Amino acid sequence: MQTSEFLVSAPGKVILHGEHSVVHGKVALAVSVNLRTHLRLQATSSGDVRINLPNIDTFLSWEITALQPLLAGCKEQDGLKEPDADLLKRLREFTGISDDSTDTRSMAVLAFLYMYLTVFAGSLASITVSVWSELPTGAGLGSSAAYNVCLSAALLSARGTISSPLTPQLESARWRKEELELINRWAFMGEKIIHGNPSGVDNAVGTWGGFLRYHAGNITPLSWVPILRILLTNTKVPRSTKVLVSGVKDKINKFPSIMNPVLESISAVSVTCEQTLTEMAAHGPSADYYNILEELIDINQHHLNVMGVGHSSLDTLCRVTLARGLHSKLTGAGGGGCGITLLRPETDTSMIQSTIEELKACGFDCWETSIGAPGVQQHSSAALSQDILKILNSY
Amino acid sequence: MQTSEFLVSAPGKVILHGEHSVVHGKVALAVSVNLRTHLRLQATSSGDVRINLPNIDTFLSWEITALQPLLAGCKEQDGLKEPDADLLKRLREFTGISDDSTDTRSMAVLAFLYMYLTVFAGSLASITVSVWSELPTGAGLGSSAAYNVCLSAALLSARGTISSPLTPQLESARWRKEELELINRWAFMGEKIIHGNPSGVDNAVGTWGGFLRYHAGNITPLSWVPILRILLTNTKVPRSTKVLVSGVKDKINKFPSIMNPVLESISAVSVTCEQTLTEMAAHGPSADYYNILEELIDINQHHLNVMGVGHSSLDTLCRVTLARGLHSKLTGAGGGGCGITLLRPETDTSMIQSTIEELKACGFDCWETSIGAPGVQQHSSAALSQDILKILNSY
Repeated sequence: MQTSEFLVSAPGKVILHGEHSVVHGKVALAVSVNLRTHLRLQATSSGDVRINLPNIDTFLSWEITALQPLLAGCKEQDGLKEPDADLLKRLREFTGISDDSTDTRSMAVLAFLYMYLTVFAGSLASITVSVWSELPTGAGLGSSAAYNVCLSAALLSARGTISSPLTPQLESARWRKEELELINRWAFMGEKIIHGNPSGVDNAVGTWGGFLRYHAGNITPLSWVPILRILLTNTKVPRSTKVLVSGVKDKINKFPSIMNPVLESISAVSVTCEQTLTEMAAHGPSADYYNILEELIDINQHHLNVMGVGHSSLDTLCRVTLARGLHSKLTGAGGGGCGITLLRPETDTSMIQSTIEELKACGFDCWETSIGAPGVQQHSSAALSQDILKILNSY
Repeated sequence: MQTSEFLVSAPGKVILHGEHSVVHGKVALAVSVNLRTHLRLQATSSGDVRINLPNIDTFLSWEITALQPLLAGCKEQDGLKEPDADLLKRLREFTGISDDSTDTRSMAVLAFLYMYLTVFAGSLASITVSVWSELPTGAGLGSSAAYNVCLSAALLSARGTISSPLTPQLESARWRKEELELINRWAFMGEKIIHGNPSGVDNAVGTWGGFLRYHAGNITPLSWVPILRILLTNTKVPRSTKVLVSGVKDKINKFPSIMNPVLESISAVSVTCEQTLTEMAAHGPSADYYNILEELIDINQHHLNVMGVGHSSLDTLCRVTLARGLHSKLTGAGGGGCGITLLRPETDTSMIQSTIEELKACGFDCWETSIGAPGVQQHSSAALSQDILKILNSY
C-alpha cells in the first residue's frame, strides 16, 4: 500500500419520482441525498483485518493468517457478475453467521470480508476499516449501497487497482469514469451479497451521485442538473416493501383500466421532472421551475395514494409542510418510511427550523440536506467535520 | 283545473364520479340526492298568481289581468328548444329585474313567470305556488333544477297537459315515461333561463332520479341500481366553478402527458362504478361491492386533488371520516363546496351521529341522506312531514 490512510464518503439515495411504477416498466428518477456514509481505511502492522461499524455496535477483527485459507480454490471473479457462492458459504462458516441470518450486522460483515478477500486476493494486507453513516439503516435510503460503495472505493484504491485521486492541493476528489465504473461493479457485488437481487440503482447513485434515470433495467446518469435543498423526513413507521409492492400489483390486476393510466401519468411525471431539471441547469433555477417541481411532487404524492402506498404519517408530513407552502411526497416504498420536502434557494432558515421542530414533535426524524450531491469521493481529513473525524479516528 | 291542490317534490343532484373530466369528454355518473325540493300549487279565486319562496324570503303576486298582455305576439314554443328571448325581455321589464341581474331571487321569479305564462298561455289560472327546499342554494346540488322540475311537473299537471298520477290509494306517485320526458324538457327550459347554457344533467336527475350516465352530451338513466346511504357535507367554502374548470383546463394544457392519463383513469372509475352498482342490483349489496365503491371514492378523490380542485376543508372531511373507516370525496366543482361520504347498510347510527357532530364542529353543514332516490313525485299530504306541510301551508 502506497498510502497509509484513505478517507472516502458516498451519498445515500432517494427516489424523486417513479417508485413502484418502475416495477411495472416505467421511468424512475433516483437521486443522491447528501446524508453520507464515511469510511476510513488505515494500513496497520498488526497482522489483523479489523472492521468498526459504530452505528450498529459492531467491532470485529480477524488474523490474516486465519483468513488466507478461505481463498483456497477460489475461482477467478467472472467479470464481477455474481458473488462466489462457495466463498460466501465458507465465510458464513468462518464467521459463525448461519445461512438464514440476514440481519444488518451479519450482512455488513459478510460483504466486507468478501470484498476484502477478493480485492486483496493476491496478498492480504493488514488494515483497519471504520465506517460511520449519517443514514438510518432500513429506511430505503440506500445505506447498504453507500457502505458498499465506500468499501469498494477504499479497498480498490488501497490495493492499487484504481488510483488515489486526492492530491495535496485538494480537500476532496473523485475518480475517473472508468475507475468509478469499477467501483460501481464491486459495490453492486456487495449489494448482491446483502440483498440477493438488487436493482443496482442504489450503488449507481452512491457511485455517480446526482440524478439517474432508471428504466427497464437501464441506469443512465443525467448530465449536469442542479443540487436542490430538501428536508428528508423519516416517519419511522415500519413497513414491508415486499407487501407494498405486492399490494400495488394486486390493485393493478383488480382495476387495470383505472391503474394503468396512473402508471402512465407517473412515468410522465418522471420525464417532465427530468426535462425541468435539465432546463434549470441550462437557464438557471428560476421560480417558474420550482413551481413545476412542486406541482410534480404534489401530483405524484396523490398518485402514490391512489396506488395504496400512502400512510396517515405521510399525510401529516404533507399537511405540516404545505401549511408553510412546502411540498412533500413519500420516497421509496411508502406505507410510512421516508418523505422528501422541496426547499427553494430562498426558503428562510428560521421557517425551516420551525418546520423541522414541528415534524420532530410528530415523532419523525428530520434532516435538512440536499439532493443531487456528488457520488463517492476521496477526502483529506481537512474536508471532514470534527465530529465525523472523531468517530472515525477513535478505533 | 280539475284538482285544487298539487304537492310535488324533486331531489337534488350530486356527481358521484366524473366531475371535471366530463368537461373533457369523459363519462360522469350523476345521481339524485334525497334532499328534496317540495312544491305546493293551489288553485285560487283571487285572480292573482302568487309565488312564495320562503328559503329566499321571496313572496310576490301579480294580477292575471296585468300578466295577460305579456303574452301578446308570443311565438309558439319551438319544440321547447330555447327560451323566447322577447318574452324574457318583457318579463324583466314587467318585474323590474334588470338585464344584468342574475341573483337567485331574480332568476327564480323569471323562471316561474316564464313557465307559468307559457304553460297556461291559453287561459291564465289563478294559483298560488309555494316552494320549500331542503337543498342549500349555490352549492352545486342542483337546487335550481329541483325547483324547475317541481314547477314544470306541477304546472303541467295543473294545466292538464299531463296527468295527475296520484290516486286516493297512494301517498306518492310518479308520472309515465312520456310525461316525465315533457316535465324534463320544460324544466330544462327553466334551467336555461336561470343558467344560460346548462348541461341538462341536473334537471334530468331531478326528473328521473336514480343514477344517470353523462357522456359527450348524452344523458342515460341507468336501469335499477341500489339506493345508497351517504353523508352530504357542505364545507361552505365558497368557490367559483368557472375558475376551477378553467384551472383544470390550464393544467391539462401545461402537463398533457401527465393529465390526460388521469382523465382516462377517472373515466374508468365511473365505468367501474357503474358496473359495480349494476352487479349490486343483481346480486345484492355485499361487503365486497362496498369495498370496491370505497376504493373508487378514494382513487377519484386523489385524482381530483391531482387536477387541483381539492381544498384543505375537503382534506379535513376525508380525514375525519376515514378515522371512522368512512370514505369521502368532493362532489361537483371542488375547491371547497360539497363532499359525499359513503355509509354502509350496517353503519352504526351513533357513529354516524358523532361523525356529523365532528364535521359540524369543523364549521360544515352535514346531512345524513341517500343517493339513488326517486325523481319527481306527486304526493298526498299524508306523505309529507308535518314540518314541510306547515311551511307549504302557511302561505
